[in-house]
Amino acid sequence: MAETRRRARGGGGAARRAERSAVSFDTVKYIERNIPNFEVLNEEALAIIETNADTVLEEIGVNFINNPAALKRWKDAGADIDGERVRIPRGLARKLCATAPSEFTQHARNPERNVVMGGRNLVLAPVYGPPFVRDAEGGRRYATMDDFNKFVKLGYMSKWLHHSGGTVCEPTDIAVNKRHLDMLHAHMTLSDKPFMGSVTEPSRAQDSVDMCGILFGKDFVQQNTVMTSLININSPMTFDDVMMGALEVYAQNNQAAIISPFIVGGAMAPVSVAGTLTQVLAETLAGIAYSQLIRPGAPVILGAFVTSIDMNSGAPTFGTPEAAHITYGVGQLARRLNLPYRSAGSFCGSKLPDAQAAYETANSLNMGLLAGVNFMLHSCGWLEGGLVSSFEKFVMDADQLGALHHLAKGISVDENAQALDAIREVGPGGHYLGCAHTQANFKAAFWKSDLLDYKPFETWADEGAMDTEALAARRVQKMLADYRQPEMDIAIREALDTYVAEKKAAEPDSFM
Amino acid sequence: MAETRRRARGGGGAARRAERSAVSFDTVKYIERNIPNFEVLNEEALAIIETNADTVLEEIGVNFINNPAALKRWKDAGADIDGERVRIPRGLARKLCATAPSEFTQHARNPERNVVMGGRNLVLAPVYGPPFVRDAEGGRRYATMDDFNKFVKLGYMSKWLHHSGGTVCEPTDIAVNKRHLDMLHAHMTLSDKPFMGSVTEPSRAQDSVDMCGILFGKDFVQQNTVMTSLININSPMTFDDVMMGALEVYAQNNQAAIISPFIVGGAMAPVSVAGTLTQVLAETLAGIAYSQLIRPGAPVILGAFVTSIDMNSGAPTFGTPEAAHITYGVGQLARRLNLPYRSAGSFCGSKLPDAQAAYETANSLNMGLLAGVNFMLHSCGWLEGGLVSSFEKFVMDADQLGALHHLAKGISVDENAQALDAIREVGPGGHYLGCAHTQANFKAAFWKSDLLDYKPFETWADEGAMDTEALAARRVQKMLADYRQPEMDIAIREALDTYVAEKKAAEPDSFM
Repeated sequence: MAETRRRARGGGGAARRAERSAVSFDTVKYIERNIPNFEVLNEEALAIIETNADTVLEEIGVNFINNPAALKRWKDAGADIDGERVRIPRGLARKLCATAPSEFTQHARNPERNVVMGGRNLVLAPVYGPPFVRDAEGGRRYATMDDFNKFVKLGYMSKWLHHSGGTVCEPTDIAVNKRHLDMLHAHMTLSDKPFMGSVTEPSRAQDSVDMCGILFGKDFVQQNTVMTSLININSPMTFDDVMMGALEVYAQNNQAAIISPFIVGGAMAPVSVAGTLTQVLAETLAGIAYSQLIRPGAPVILGAFVTSIDMNSGAPTFGTPEAAHITYGVGQLARRLNLPYRSAGSFCGSKLPDAQAAYETANSLNMGLLAGVNFMLHSCGWLEGGLVSSFEKFVMDADQLGALHHLAKGISVDENAQALDAIREVGPGGHYLGCAHTQANFKAAFWKSDLLDYKPFETWADEGAMDTEALAARRVQKMLADYRQPEMDIAIREALDTYVAEKKAAEPDSFM
Repeated sequence: MAETRRRARGGGGAARRAERSAVSFDTVKYIERNIPNFEVLNEEALAIIETNADTVLEEIGVNFINNPAALKRWKDAGADIDGERVRIPRGLARKLCATAPSEFTQHARNPERNVVMGGRNLVLAPVYGPPFVRDAEGGRRYATMDDFNKFVKLGYMSKWLHHSGGTVCEPTDIAVNKRHLDMLHAHMTLSDKPFMGSVTEPSRAQDSVDMCGILFGKDFVQQNTVMTSLININSPMTFDDVMMGALEVYAQNNQAAIISPFIVGGAMAPVSVAGTLTQVLAETLAGIAYSQLIRPGAPVILGAFVTSIDMNSGAPTFGTPEAAHITYGVGQLARRLNLPYRSAGSFCGSKLPDAQAAYETANSLNMGLLAGVNFMLHSCGWLEGGLVSSFEKFVMDADQLGALHHLAKGISVDENAQALDAIREVGPGGHYLGCAHTQANFKAAFWKSDLLDYKPFETWADEGAMDTEALAARRVQKMLADYRQPEMDIAIREALDTYVAEKKAAEPDSFM
């Protein structure tokens, strides 16, 4: 089916050949939860926060900066405009949000990798945005395009990762005004998983749409969502023209946007959880409502990137209980809006992929699953408060994502799972290792890490007494050595190459 | 009040003097949850498991080994006895369990450290049982009494730890038949938090009761619970005479027992979650019912130590999703029995306090909080599948326990927390760092680790680029250097010393 679709779009025929022989790596389907969400706020608390968010929008309002067209759209929709301030009458934003779909499919070039955002699903994507990388051998350094390609390859090969992500690291060796082309090219050619578009300029969002036109066919892109891109709100309550310009391009082209406050609690939002929930809800209501003014029905995700702050040093802190409270709370608010929800990730403040990194990350991953998150950006590889993409942590976290899949399955109580015959067979004082039920079920019974160490102490010591980082460094090397590029229609590949080369030639490099 | 009680019990008077000047370390009250429990099983699934557990007790039964008195008690209660097999008619075990209290207070010698087991509370205690210790400097080695004392001191000084525990490590340099005396002496004199009694022989349980008689006064012990001790069930469905003998001593003396299967799933219980839940419920019903045959109203805790297994190597695995399912499920079953619940802990399989250890531990700690656990043994310091008590991991985990306290507080939506005035004050594009609401609230707003690193990269690098283990090693040294023994009535101290010395002199050392 994929091949048929590609041929039809590309206009080619039998002469086409695959660029390389097909090698496939196992990727599991996105998580479909069979466990409840953890609901920390009661009805009364939710109603207070919703009322207050409407008060914020009505009384205080939000700013749309350098964007007269946006102000006009808001005015036409019934908002009160005062300079760049947009005050939104009570209930209007929520009403506008109602046209946003509760679920949508993001297509991948390999249809087996399509993901459905929303509902009880959880789609996992890698870290986004760090200017630095770290690995055990080379330490911490500015990220390059070579690093970027490696992360895309690792993401492609990671069984529990459903999405290739976006800026897995910033390729600082490529000009700022051209790196989006190389990044998209990498996601499109080195992986067959769904990916994100550029948001750093509206023109780069348009390049993303155009490159998807080559990859998927122009008509297909207009009729289907093939990108989910990250639109940050400048909290508190500011929507800048660059991000809104990118949002406008994506919404006009039926492409999805995560509309997401980026909040360090105590700095960009009140120091209290309820206050932050209020502001997050007001901001996402305004942003999502705006997307629906651009194109009613445009796919969106309600996002919340929220962390707390060390009030002594001003440093952001991760995996904290307050971030968990907010993440649980926003999940409830998003479900009441019937919108897909993005939050959580492999967040940590540690400089190294050590115990601190793992505590903080595990706290955040677990909370993300139970909070009902639908799209988890940053689900692996995040280090040092998001300044660093770590190769070792990428594979360490990606392995832990397997545990989330198994947790989400819930508990079967069918007759086989009840295992009464096994209990009868074994009886008091026996053991279950050899019994029929164990033999029939052991392979699928327990999640098993592909990375962590379970060996006897002596074996482990004889083999070098490796810690998790060392095990992960070995795994990174093995994965990169084993990598094989997914099959791609050669004409599409050539058209992408040409697009990127022509765009790059058309303007001088800028590193601003 | 403590001093009054002690004087009254000790029979002494004004001449008494404190052995050392009082130095107190801050310990917070046990956790009183203000968040819901996570309920993974629905009513139908719970009913199936409860019905099956009764079927197991009725059809298959349990073994009470080398214990004719127990068989007689069961016969008198209406069970069917066949050799050492006890088959319990449907509903009988549950009915017998009804006399066990849903909550009880375990008294500490410092009444400020009393804990209430049950309800919505969570009491945290350290690791129990490892024969080895590890620290960054000395590596892995057999544990000694000197190590034991250090762990008791660390526990006493740990703010988020409410309980001194029991066998924080096995002091292998002390004779097996005497080490319980030194261990109890250490808990009684080096700490003022509540502790556990010996269970390795009924006579050692009696020694524990007798030493508590010295510490608290004999009458006080008969009227109040001053120990909570760990009674393991030999799964599947076997109750040996040593553990039951200790249980009998404790129940007769109104002291609490955790009645707890020790299960590596796939070996001591079926490889399925529902099958394991069934067996755990059957076993704990039988054990708790037996405690109530000894003394109706004896305080008990329904325990579940459950882990999964790597079916390739046979090694137990920790922090896994199946263990989480079981822990959530047993919590629901325990609440339906209206009994306090013990489970979870700082479980990990790693050999080192590294990222693996922290992922696995964080998975387990979070699940323990959300599963409604009331007493969490092993909440800090566990390493290498329970073979090792780690000094560094003890303080690392103990720090993370602070996050559980803050998570459990839930979300306030009072007017101050709503922070609408702060949002008004700051407005779009501002920041909250200096606003009145932040100034008034920042100190209590966010949990902050006392251990982990949040410094800027350059500062951290200049200070030695320490990983979490190195930070923890430094903290262990500092805590041990700062330790001051809690005040104790000198007459009680002397009586305890004499008891231990006389008991030790009365029989030869045994290392069996």
